[in-house]
Amino acid sequence: MTSDKRIAVFPGSFDPFTCGHEDIVRRVLPLFDEVVIAIGTNSKKKREFDLDFLKNGITGCFAESGKVRVMVYEGLTALFAKEVGARFLIRGLRNTTDFEYENPISEANKHIYPELETIFLFTSPQFAYYSSSIVRELYKFGLDVQKFVPFKMPEKTH
Amino acid sequence: MTSDKRIAVFPGSFDPFTCGHEDIVRRVLPLFDEVVIAIGTNSKKKREFDLDFLKNGITGCFAESGKVRVMVYEGLTALFAKEVGARFLIRGLRNTTDFEYENPISEANKHIYPELETIFLFTSPQFAYYSSSIVRELYKFGLDVQKFVPFKMPEKTH
Amino acid sequence: MTSDKRIAVFPGSFDPFTCGHEDIVRRVLPLFDEVVIAIGTNSKKKREFDLDFLKNGITGCFAESGKVRVMVYEGLTALFAKEVGARFLIRGLRNTTDFEYENPISEANKHIYPELETIFLFTSPQFAYYSSSIVRELYKFGLDVQKFVPFKMPEKTH
Amino acid sequence: MTSDKRIAVFPGSFDPFTCGHEDIVRRVLPLFDEVVIAIGTNSKKKREFDLDFLKNGITGCFAESGKVRVMVYEGLTALFAKEVGARFLIRGLRNTTDFEYENPISEANKHIYPELETIFLFTSPQFAYYSSSIVRELYKFGLDVQKFVPFKMPEKTH
Amino acid sequence: MTSDKRIAVFPGSFDPFTCGHEDIVRRVLPLFDEVVIAIGTNSKKKREFDLDFLKNGITGCFAESGKVRVMVYEGLTALFAKEVGARFLIRGLRNTTDFEYENPISEANKHIYPELETIFLFTSPQFAYYSSSIVRELYKFGLDVQKFVPFKMPEKTH
Amino acid sequence: MTSDKRIAVFPGSFDPFTCGHEDIVRRVLPLFDEVVIAIGTNSKKKREFDLDFLKNGITGCFAESGKVRVMVYEGLTALFAKEVGARFLIRGLRNTTDFEYENPISEANKHIYPELETIFLFTSPQFAYYSSSIVRELYKFGLDVQKFVPFKMPEKTH
Repeated sequence: MTSDKRIAVFPGSFDPFTCGHEDIVRRVLPLFDEVVIAIGTNSKKKREFDLDFLKNGITGCFAESGKVRVMVYEGLTALFAKEVGARFLIRGLRNTTDFEYENPISEANKHIYPELETIFLFTSPQFAYYSSSIVRELYKFGLDVQKFVPFKMPEKTH
Repeated sequence: MTSDKRIAVFPGSFDPFTCGHEDIVRRVLPLFDEVVIAIGTNSKKKREFDLDFLKNGITGCFAESGKVRVMVYEGLTALFAKEVGARFLIRGLRNTTDFEYENPISEANKHIYPELETIFLFTSPQFAYYSSSIVRELYKFGLDVQKFVPFKMPEKTH
Repeated sequence: MTSDKRIAVFPGSFDPFTCGHEDIVRRVLPLFDEVVIAIGTNSKKKREFDLDFLKNGITGCFAESGKVRVMVYEGLTALFAKEVGARFLIRGLRNTTDFEYENPISEANKHIYPELETIFLFTSPQFAYYSSSIVRELYKFGLDVQKFVPFKMPEKTH
Repeated sequence: MTSDKRIAVFPGSFDPFTCGHEDIVRRVLPLFDEVVIAIGTNSKKKREFDLDFLKNGITGCFAESGKVRVMVYEGLTALFAKEVGARFLIRGLRNTTDFEYENPISEANKHIYPELETIFLFTSPQFAYYSSSIVRELYKFGLDVQKFVPFKMPEKTH
Repeated sequence: MTSDKRIAVFPGSFDPFTCGHEDIVRRVLPLFDEVVIAIGTNSKKKREFDLDFLKNGITGCFAESGKVRVMVYEGLTALFAKEVGARFLIRGLRNTTDFEYENPISEANKHIYPELETIFLFTSPQFAYYSSSIVRELYKFGLDVQKFVPFKMPEKTH
Repeated sequence: MTSDKRIAVFPGSFDPFTCGHEDIVRRVLPLFDEVVIAIGTNSKKKREFDLDFLKNGITGCFAESGKVRVMVYEGLTALFAKEVGARFLIRGLRNTTDFEYENPISEANKHIYPELETIFLFTSPQFAYYSSSIVRELYKFGLDVQKFVPFKMPEKTH
């Protein structure tokens, strides 16, 4: 299923979604008619943050644009992109470790779904150290992580 | 000058334009209403290949698309992009050296022209070693470089 | 135990052996009298593909050369190389992450067995994104992975 | 709690402390009035080497300097540094993988404790391949690892 | 000539000195009794900015600290450091290209002057794309570069 | 012209040949029947050290092996390798910058001469910072560089 609309998927585990993720979406939004923020899940991997909480938070974040949909998926990203009619994936690059990690994945995705192109943006400098894993680490130790997330976070009570 | 059209600039010295460059343009073309292939010149730097030869070759290469314009420019890329109403630059990334080189440049371009986003694609593996400098090197030694360039090259006579 | 024969070990977990691995062996074969493809096992780590299946597949792949032996080993690679009288290890390098990973390992191997040299080849571009982990990922999701492996793969039935 | 003394924390899991770690401390010692070697522990992660054994070994190693304290901590490194009145963290860099790993961490630490600067030294070449994980690997296989550690190691009996 | 004072040299061509350079000096200043900002010159390499202008600008920038001296030198950095009694060099690291470039230089400096340690700081994210060469490039094209430099720049008149 | 002998070319500008270069040759020598150390020259690029001096020095260095030939060449390395009947190039890798630089060159060499394989060795840690350009730099400033070169260097008189 493809369409005439320019649809992109921005995939990630988003545990949690950060201001760095938000920044990538906002910068790339003018290029597309629809951007699907796709929260990848894996039944074997425990998440720190609740899926519904994230879905609502991200949806609210881009409500005014009218072009962003938030979905949850399981399985191969390339097949999910095909299902929703997207011919583009969006990924942010923070550093050379990201670069080397993403390179073979983008080729593997093309093997699965040859029409799929991956579009990369460099993370803005002020967000270059924002990673979901660092946010989780701070959160687990009870520190305030509101600065890293573009919507209201729950208070950690412990 | 901006417009409602999605215009991108693909800048480079293109001395010469290679099949790797062509590949980037073709993959990104569905995203834009117009792609300006911008041949950067510098009065202090001698070119190996003739500008008109390149301009004609590249133009012919994308004639059927109706969306590609080939232009020659001098000066700052970001200002050129602003002039032609483009809000996006396109760059290919071959490796981590490219990554580290492009990262500060994309930020500097944003400093000059804040609406300008740089979109990166990874070079397809079969073209990862195609660089204009390697083509020039082979050409200077009289080797056939037709394989690297998507239009008819002059024969080297010496 | 060393010998006058030029013997090399090509170690890996090979779960599974890919066309990228095959390519490295073929390119390096003229240099050696014998290449031992050494499938490293670890009783604590579950494999996706059966060892006998792999051993037979790889053996068949190089049968005509008469110079390739396939062995299974557990423990330190350098000690295994010493046991089979090899003074060379062969490793493929795909990218800078591989480079930084292999560098200290090759020195540690020399600490264990000072006569052991590690010889590196760059992965051919068409195989640069072939990794055992990507093949396993596709295989788990029921996709056809025959393209990545140089011998007949079992069909996934689930 | 800060003080007029120049205090630095050199954090790590040090499982075990290696000659590479010792080298970093010795080279940086003239800069500080006190260096706290901080052994990070994590109740969920099993250690190979005994904490008291390490603490005694490291303490003995720097006894003559009168400026080194060895402590064990759990939790966020930046908060530990704050507690002991340190405004500097010390980290060694072996390669670009270390570089990309440390970069966001040093920024996150600054987020937690804004007065905290991380000071990096390049690992001396002769120690560049010394890593705790390689020492553990050799130790598990019963090899002599005394060369890698600056104090007397227990003999492995198995 | 060495002394009991903790003296560091921060060397560079500083053509021009940027806010990124200033940031490194400020962050490292509490560690030292004196920091010598050493403007390296090379009779064969033409500078864009006047040496006296830079010297005055930088001096003014750190006047209140009472610990910063600005000097001009020619020749090997390690020998200059020895001359001024410094046992430490300070360098900023922006990315992996810087890392690989600085690594052998710091070892060569130690060969020349074995007591010399090089201390590295990661460039703060907001300054990561500030490089003297980018500032020169913008300046040559008549753009305002005041944002990049911590003291009053001359106006470009052309 | 190919032969049954295993011939390798170790190319470089070797201005000068260093102990790091010597180390690579010694480690790889058991693999080959002949190693040609090929000093690349370029009429447009001035050398610091005399070609005959280098040729004699390197030849003396490996005289006892009976397997090393020193030659001077101009032009494309791959064509030179073909001429001398070599099917292998030898290159040392010091770091990721070398890696990214060598990768496309080895592919270009294969384009020119498809039977040519490039074999890489990691530079031994003690030589990782030995580069011809650093030796030249020290030499120009009148420093003793004997430590870096495996044969008697001329004294610098100035």
